[in-house]
Amino acid sequence: MNLPKPILALINSFERLPGIGPKTAQRLAFYLLRVPSEDIAEFSHNLAKLKSDTKLCSICKNVDEVDPCNICTNSLRDPTKIIVTSSPLDVYAFEKVGFKGKYHVLHGVINPLDNIGPDELYINELIKRLTDQIADSADVKGQTVPIELILATNTSMEGEATAMYIAKVIKDRGYKEDEIRVTRIARGLPVGGDIEYADDVTLSRALEGRLKF
Amino acid sequence: MNLPKPILALINSFERLPGIGPKTAQRLAFYLLRVPSEDIAEFSHNLAKLKSDTKLCSICKNVDEVDPCNICTNSLRDPTKIIVTSSPLDVYAFEKVGFKGKYHVLHGVINPLDNIGPDELYINELIKRLTDQIADSADVKGQTVPIELILATNTSMEGEATAMYIAKVIKDRGYKEDEIRVTRIARGLPVGGDIEYADDVTLSRALEGRLKF
Repeated sequence: MNLPKPILALINSFERLPGIGPKTAQRLAFYLLRVPSEDIAEFSHNLAKLKSDTKLCSICKNVDEVDPCNICTNSLRDPTKIIVTSSPLDVYAFEKVGFKGKYHVLHGVINPLDNIGPDELYINELIKRLTDQIADSADVKGQTVPIELILATNTSMEGEATAMYIAKVIKDRGYKEDEIRVTRIARGLPVGGDIEYADDVTLSRALEGRLKF
Repeated sequence: MNLPKPILALINSFERLPGIGPKTAQRLAFYLLRVPSEDIAEFSHNLAKLKSDTKLCSICKNVDEVDPCNICTNSLRDPTKIIVTSSPLDVYAFEKVGFKGKYHVLHGVINPLDNIGPDELYINELIKRLTDQIADSADVKGQTVPIELILATNTSMEGEATAMYIAKVIKDRGYKEDEIRVTRIARGLPVGGDIEYADDVTLSRALEGRLKF
């Protein structure tokens, strides 16, 4: 195709985004041709600023405008509840439902097919963080509350493998019962779900995870 | 949601694009966080250059890097066949199938619900262009070939209405038979189509437009 170079370049940029194929990329580029220049300039500016104006929190690896992030420095939040997620987007999903603890973002899941092993994720940083936090709280007099590590990776195969790996590493480290408690988010029927249409694995999990009513 | 401002700004920019909802916009913004800075800078640059490096051809209203566009200035192309499209993207669809005439881009279709009437499109410019072209060819000695105006707007209601309007304007102008011939792209079964699943209107059109085999 003999498209003008500026349009082709933009189509290529759009095509690299996940879920955007050649046809959609074309449609977006040609759509933008009809958009006022100021709006495009703003879009371009927002893209350019995305990385320069955000930082990775050195504690929880979440993305924020400041380091450490606003969640880590918020003293009103419970430091003994840490949700482990695979992406920063998941942090905001838990924020929306009102979780008031802290987070740790792995930035991925273990996926041997994509050559992503534990060392490519922020798992070592998580262990170090937990060790430091336990050491700090040991200095404080009085009884200490165990840290609850809530593994909230996806319930996909990779997400489960990642959760299992983290649980194993923590077990192997031999923390005491009153130091760390590892939990996993419940797997079961989504609210509004039909038992008839639930898959076998989900139904087994829902049964295993049943709670007193 | 308490998302960092740079991320929110980019999500908003993505959300304005057609076919991109809030969830997709979020996913794209968070995806870009993991992309190398140079790639984002390139994306941003391509956006900024989209409008500044392209021009609307003063003859056919197509988008190109030069004005008049490469198609209009190409003397090897047949000036007596003009495809009328509603968008520049459609021009490239016809280019891909090897059309060797010229184009006229309307930049939209007549759509009263969106307040788009004939004056918002490049219809007056089309009439002027045709009149000028006829006047020019009249100066040349010898018999003249009539201009074939191929109406290739979409076969949607608005596309059909736009095609009908242009056909009517040209008829009302009283051009001679050997000056302009207006045609419409064929409506019928798409190749690979099933008669069983074709809608009634398409099937009627396919029957009406039957050709000698």
